[in-house]
Amino acid sequence: MKYKLYYWPEIQGRGEFVRLALEDAGAQYVDVLRRSGDFSFPKNPAPFALPYLIAGKLVISQTANILQYLGPRLGLAPRDKTGRLWVHQLQLTIADWLVEVHDTHHPIGSGLYYEEQKRESKRRAADFLAARLPKYLGYFEDVLRRMPGGYLLGRTCSYADLSLFQMVEGLRYAFPVAFGRTEGSFPRILNVRDRVAARPRLAAYLASARRIPFNRMGIFRHYPELDSVGKKSKKT
Amino acid sequence: MKYKLYYWPEIQGRGEFVRLALEDAGAQYVDVLRRSGDFSFPKNPAPFALPYLIAGKLVISQTANILQYLGPRLGLAPRDKTGRLWVHQLQLTIADWLVEVHDTHHPIGSGLYYEEQKRESKRRAADFLAARLPKYLGYFEDVLRRMPGGYLLGRTCSYADLSLFQMVEGLRYAFPVAFGRTEGSFPRILNVRDRVAARPRLAAYLASARRIPFNRMGIFRHYPELDSVGKKSKKT
Repeated sequence: MKYKLYYWPEIQGRGEFVRLALEDAGAQYVDVLRRSGDFSFPKNPAPFALPYLIAGKLVISQTANILQYLGPRLGLAPRDKTGRLWVHQLQLTIADWLVEVHDTHHPIGSGLYYEEQKRESKRRAADFLAARLPKYLGYFEDVLRRMPGGYLLGRTCSYADLSLFQMVEGLRYAFPVAFGRTEGSFPRILNVRDRVAARPRLAAYLASARRIPFNRMGIFRHYPELDSVGKKSKKT
Repeated sequence: MKYKLYYWPEIQGRGEFVRLALEDAGAQYVDVLRRSGDFSFPKNPAPFALPYLIAGKLVISQTANILQYLGPRLGLAPRDKTGRLWVHQLQLTIADWLVEVHDTHHPIGSGLYYEEQKRESKRRAADFLAARLPKYLGYFEDVLRRMPGGYLLGRTCSYADLSLFQMVEGLRYAFPVAFGRTEGSFPRILNVRDRVAARPRLAAYLASARRIPFNRMGIFRHYPELDSVGKKSKKT
């Protein structure tokens, strides 16, 4: 099967979570919009947004849905029902986490410029770093603590581990100060990050021009004014 | 199978999307936390957040994941791969939409009170009503236009139709002015809403005390100051 991935060509964004799975598995795929900016959106079924994947006659959208489809086919997810539901739950939690990362620089509107919502971004980023980031990190560290073997599902790497790697990379880029100060408290997450980075096909991918550098158009953005160590927010 | 649903007892929230499916199918379930506030969070596998569903030995969390599991078992989703991926994509898009509804009154932090982020809420709600709501409504109207039969997948009601019903009900409660002014432009969505509301088991449920009323603790909240017809935001 030769897959076709459709995603914005200038950023890692949500497409990167799919790319990491395809690259790690050595799957054959075309990153269509990086070859040609010209594309027609499928009409039926129509995705709501990028990314979408074409696999034969299937058009699949929503990142977690694409990964759920690809996972067992690429050897990156269990085939049994229980395992599939569990790894998908982890991926959907990462998807929620990613939205919150995005909203640190776009708390008012995704169609507005950052500069138009900079003041609100400072408040939202401070809350994210103080209240939300520790919650997500603590959750995944805890999952890893309960599951011996080093990866989220145990000894075998899943697409959720690749996504967790991407979260760490993105957080290191976007919040070098605040995340740098806290990441050491999550050694099992960092271990996943290191193990994923060392997987041979991924190491080659990450060193290649196919890996788009992080930048200020993507979901993870580095704005020094947002990267501060906030105080704890009040709980309601 | 007797299901156990765990969700906050005071609000419709995300749990309601699961309740609608269980109720429509006449499934046996216990809404555990409405019977007893005392619960212990499952440890392994541990959900990140409510809702979660216990089905025999399975613990399933993330609303869309729960619905994906229940759908074929309750006769609310197709059994074939293509259909399952498609309806799940629709549900994940509704999940994204719902986060944006929530963030109209919590654009800065979910752990802060509305009153602490009221000014930002006004901006976010205006952007949501002007830019985001039409995009979601237009998308689902378009899906319905391409698929004759009245429901999102054609002639058979799916869990995504029940969720679309819930979005309409919530929007009518939260934004009676702004949504009231625009809803007539989306007749196919309103038709789904009406057909779902008339399904006998759901009509009985909606008239019962089991249906928690909308309120200001839930995801859909009515604050008159947020329910205004904003001007179009600039696109980036």
